[in-house]
Amino acid sequence: MDIKDIAKSAKEASLELLGAPSELKNAALKNVKENIERHKNEIFAANKKDLQEAQTLVDKGEISQSTYARLKLDENKMRDMLKGIEDVISLDDPVNKVFWTKELDEGLILKKISCPIGVIGVIFEARPDVISQIASLAIKSGNAVILKGGRESNHTNAAIFSAINEALENTLNFPKNAVNLVFSRDDIKGLLELDEYVDLIIPRGSNKLVKYIQENTKIPVLGHASGICHIFVDESAKKDLAIKICVDAKVQYPSACNAVETILVHKNFPAIEELKKALCSAGVKIVENPADFSVEYGDKIVSLKIVENTEEAINHINKYGSGHTDSILSENKDSVDKFMNYVDSSGVYHNASTRFSDGFRYGFGAEVGISTNKTHARGPVGLDGLTIYKYKLFGSYQTVDPYAKGEKTFTHKFI
Amino acid sequence: MDIKDIAKSAKEASLELLGAPSELKNAALKNVKENIERHKNEIFAANKKDLQEAQTLVDKGEISQSTYARLKLDENKMRDMLKGIEDVISLDDPVNKVFWTKELDEGLILKKISCPIGVIGVIFEARPDVISQIASLAIKSGNAVILKGGRESNHTNAAIFSAINEALENTLNFPKNAVNLVFSRDDIKGLLELDEYVDLIIPRGSNKLVKYIQENTKIPVLGHASGICHIFVDESAKKDLAIKICVDAKVQYPSACNAVETILVHKNFPAIEELKKALCSAGVKIVENPADFSVEYGDKIVSLKIVENTEEAINHINKYGSGHTDSILSENKDSVDKFMNYVDSSGVYHNASTRFSDGFRYGFGAEVGISTNKTHARGPVGLDGLTIYKYKLFGSYQTVDPYAKGEKTFTHKFI
Repeated sequence: MDIKDIAKSAKEASLELLGAPSELKNAALKNVKENIERHKNEIFAANKKDLQEAQTLVDKGEISQSTYARLKLDENKMRDMLKGIEDVISLDDPVNKVFWTKELDEGLILKKISCPIGVIGVIFEARPDVISQIASLAIKSGNAVILKGGRESNHTNAAIFSAINEALENTLNFPKNAVNLVFSRDDIKGLLELDEYVDLIIPRGSNKLVKYIQENTKIPVLGHASGICHIFVDESAKKDLAIKICVDAKVQYPSACNAVETILVHKNFPAIEELKKALCSAGVKIVENPADFSVEYGDKIVSLKIVENTEEAINHINKYGSGHTDSILSENKDSVDKFMNYVDSSGVYHNASTRFSDGFRYGFGAEVGISTNKTHARGPVGLDGLTIYKYKLFGSYQTVDPYAKGEKTFTHKFI
Repeated sequence: MDIKDIAKSAKEASLELLGAPSELKNAALKNVKENIERHKNEIFAANKKDLQEAQTLVDKGEISQSTYARLKLDENKMRDMLKGIEDVISLDDPVNKVFWTKELDEGLILKKISCPIGVIGVIFEARPDVISQIASLAIKSGNAVILKGGRESNHTNAAIFSAINEALENTLNFPKNAVNLVFSRDDIKGLLELDEYVDLIIPRGSNKLVKYIQENTKIPVLGHASGICHIFVDESAKKDLAIKICVDAKVQYPSACNAVETILVHKNFPAIEELKKALCSAGVKIVENPADFSVEYGDKIVSLKIVENTEEAINHINKYGSGHTDSILSENKDSVDKFMNYVDSSGVYHNASTRFSDGFRYGFGAEVGISTNKTHARGPVGLDGLTIYKYKLFGSYQTVDPYAKGEKTFTHKFI
């Protein structure tokens, strides 16, 4: 099947999924979990093949050691993967939530109700455990999904996908073709053109991948190209605790998108030198060059800038930041209020490490990614971001004419 | 100023608006209303100029009589316009609503809070009253806005804009350049390229305009290109009432986007001939040609198709519809449930005219347009569609490290 046919049948599946009851979706997820467990040896064997091929690429310098590490699927990751599916089963169904009910007039009742989006394309790089996570979230939210994994994990992806698909086929009444996997680069190109069938694209991977996708499709894209996160250390911040947070936000996982890239320090913060020393001791290289304020290091490197006041910090962040996550460390209520209201980012933090910006840490159970969009969904995106709403109007044969003529008026009350 | 400079300063205004209190926004709106009233004679004079120029274009056949009619601003429309601003003042502030508060751990509190989107570009055609409506909604929701009206109403738009801008300049502390008006076609082209500054584009006008915009920008577009609305008359529908609704949905305002274009009739509906007769008596031409199922007539013409059952009706709508508004007329609960769940449109109605699909009728106070998008906002879009949310995290100097190591665990409880 070419990508257009795949998208077409995914669309058909999505229409069937619109009315899928929670029990059916959870039964499908339970089958998926059990079938992955049942086939885990085949999956490990497939992963071994990927690792062998990847080793050759590492040797040639074509992929990095860290990509190789991410590729590896061991018993621990398998356990997490299965646990992830269980977690999704236990989450509330995000579909059919009634946001409100309003009487427009006697016997004319309007309801705003959550529903699935439709067909979602997810493009991810070398992390085979993503496939079960995304498939689970899609099933739970009643969306059909087209997955494209990194070529480095093709064997593993295919094995996991095969277990998922077999499980769905064995789930009575579950629509066919709800979960799809494609392999070639041409499929990405094709997918990006299929706005007739695909409602949302979620890229998870390098800045380059995300930017390429954002620039080559009319389909809405949910994600973030870069994570330029800031910490502003205000003059009133508690010295030792502030230093601990700066080190944590950089060192705990330097390549994470929510790691700090620039530390802005109030000129009167009394421990500037201690801060620098602590960062250096933790192996962090400090850069004080304005040309680097837009760089996502993804490494143990951090920009540092002394600022005059909170306003300068806010302006700097709104100018150079990526709208991801920014934190103020301060004991001054006015500064904190200003920062929390005027920093235009999806996450604004007071006295906490930027590294908390994550769907699991927010208690969403799972995440499809982190969005720096200004529409639809922002920040870590869980099940809610995979839904939209529809309006259901329940009438008793009302026509508009008498309302337009003013013979009848609306009551407009929430009930 | 060229369009890029305008967008840049609108972006600056939007950052200032992020923290604007309700009182400031309402004071600005009150000033706008009063100033439009104060300058109404200048506005009427400007409108006269537009009408004179438009008359020449009507004579030449370059614009239609109905465009001319929409252009006209009389005392009634002025009163509605001023009342519209008052209505927006009386609406709840959509910003700073706390959706939920969650304890992640002791002393680590996460809040999901509504906030403005940023800079919104609105491109509309010949209806000068739109400008005050959109400007009011933008001010109330804390967004900066760049407006581009139809060239036919250039004089009127400029006069209304001048009154709005003067009022905002005279509102203490209200940011400069929050509301902007541009005139040339090149400005549209320019605007669509400024994804760096503009967060959302809302086109209001012909299908052609909307399609052009959707196809020529990376900025999210909120709107609908076409309104192919359906009514399915089930076999069990109450005869006379069903016929009345079909006539209302087509005749009451045939060029509205929520007017019905295709009536699907169950083969066993016992009054098919009466339905046709009633439509004909109301001056409606009936077309029974499959080639026309995707046509938005915008006129007293309707497609009619006999269907076998509810499933065929649903499939027809999901295939040919535009996801705008579709209605089932039926007394059969199963058919109704199926229709309401499986028709993939922003509005699904039971026993009501499709013409109810409208922000005012839904009680939103005002609308920026109707969206057939599958993300962000769907159906009639009011103030809520002009907002997004941010996550505010309030901590007490927590680092991520102990959570990552499993030394600390999250409590994740809503409070």
